[in-house]
Amino acid sequence: MKVYKIPEATVMRLSIYSRYLMQMQEKGIETISSGEIAAGVGVGSAQVRKDLAYFGEFGTRGVGYKVSELYGHLIKILGLNKTWNVIIIGAGKLGSALALYRGFNDRGFKVCAILDNNPDIIGKKLTDITIEPLEVMKDRISQHDIKIGIITVPAQAAQEVTDKLVQSGVKAILNFSPEVLRVPAGVTLRHVDLSVNLEVLSFNLSFNN
Amino acid sequence: MKVYKIPEATVMRLSIYSRYLMQMQEKGIETISSGEIAAGVGVGSAQVRKDLAYFGEFGTRGVGYKVSELYGHLIKILGLNKTWNVIIIGAGKLGSALALYRGFNDRGFKVCAILDNNPDIIGKKLTDITIEPLEVMKDRISQHDIKIGIITVPAQAAQEVTDKLVQSGVKAILNFSPEVLRVPAGVTLRHVDLSVNLEVLSFNLSFNN
Repeated sequence: MKVYKIPEATVMRLSIYSRYLMQMQEKGIETISSGEIAAGVGVGSAQVRKDLAYFGEFGTRGVGYKVSELYGHLIKILGLNKTWNVIIIGAGKLGSALALYRGFNDRGFKVCAILDNNPDIIGKKLTDITIEPLEVMKDRISQHDIKIGIITVPAQAAQEVTDKLVQSGVKAILNFSPEVLRVPAGVTLRHVDLSVNLEVLSFNLSFNN
Repeated sequence: MKVYKIPEATVMRLSIYSRYLMQMQEKGIETISSGEIAAGVGVGSAQVRKDLAYFGEFGTRGVGYKVSELYGHLIKILGLNKTWNVIIIGAGKLGSALALYRGFNDRGFKVCAILDNNPDIIGKKLTDITIEPLEVMKDRISQHDIKIGIITVPAQAAQEVTDKLVQSGVKAILNFSPEVLRVPAGVTLRHVDLSVNLEVLSFNLSFNN
């Protein structure tokens, strides 16, 4: 299957298709066309077919896709057929909000630890996990076999925290800090800028009016 | 200019290009090719040209784009040549984190008000704004000429809050709640699911390994 480099936009759309298929499955719908998926999520049907074609042939021409089968394929492609344990570094407002974010659990991501260096909040409980000091990072990562780290520390601390996560065995990092981070080859890094979402709105408000 | 429907993925990439151009500008770089932009942000150069072509001709063949000029165009297309006042409904951990999120300010989004119905937190200060009750929604929206609302309330309250925002004059809504919301024509709605970002990582960890 590892023939093409899959564009990140395709991966994000697969994620969206899989949510839509889950909804259709819950409604008892058994087969679906690429056009119906496209209309349901707001992209073109050629785009849906192209995105799915990266991973082989799923549907039957003229019949469409079996909802449960395609859903199962997408979940497997996205790596969501298992639970991923996650560690959060930075227990400020954003870190705490992410630790409590229900959507992660629903998709198989389990926040197992949240660390901070602020003695005022270390020991505080966020539902079933407790804020711990940075010193336990390596222990928690090996104890829970954690591959994914989320960084919500201030910019000036972000690279140091990244280096420690990588040394401790984390293979993928989601960066919510504004800092541009460096990671060695073999580690996946993704920068989240929440204002991009607002810019889609300001574009719509400006450009179409 | 309003000839084509612009894909949302294009708008998000324009936002990313504009950030990259700002960095280049800060480094004193004056001209740039589509290939250099493409390499800098990790997309194909044909994609960059196609995205920009929606909005007319910017560059000169063989010379490329003037960084400051293209940056200015993108900022204007994205509606970022002005300040957008924003209201947040829901002052829990996520809402508070967003109210304090520096990245919004950097791109011209100003959180002017944050409301909640929980008497325990109403009156609390988040830097320079104070958490206020839902009753002041209409007043704050007209007072600050707010067009954009961010929703971080629990699912069961989200549609009611949406309806109130729309009645109060908000034209664009960013929904962080898990609820699928309905808005009337003429109002832009965008759903943010933070787990999509983690799924890009789980895909990379699963599919390429």
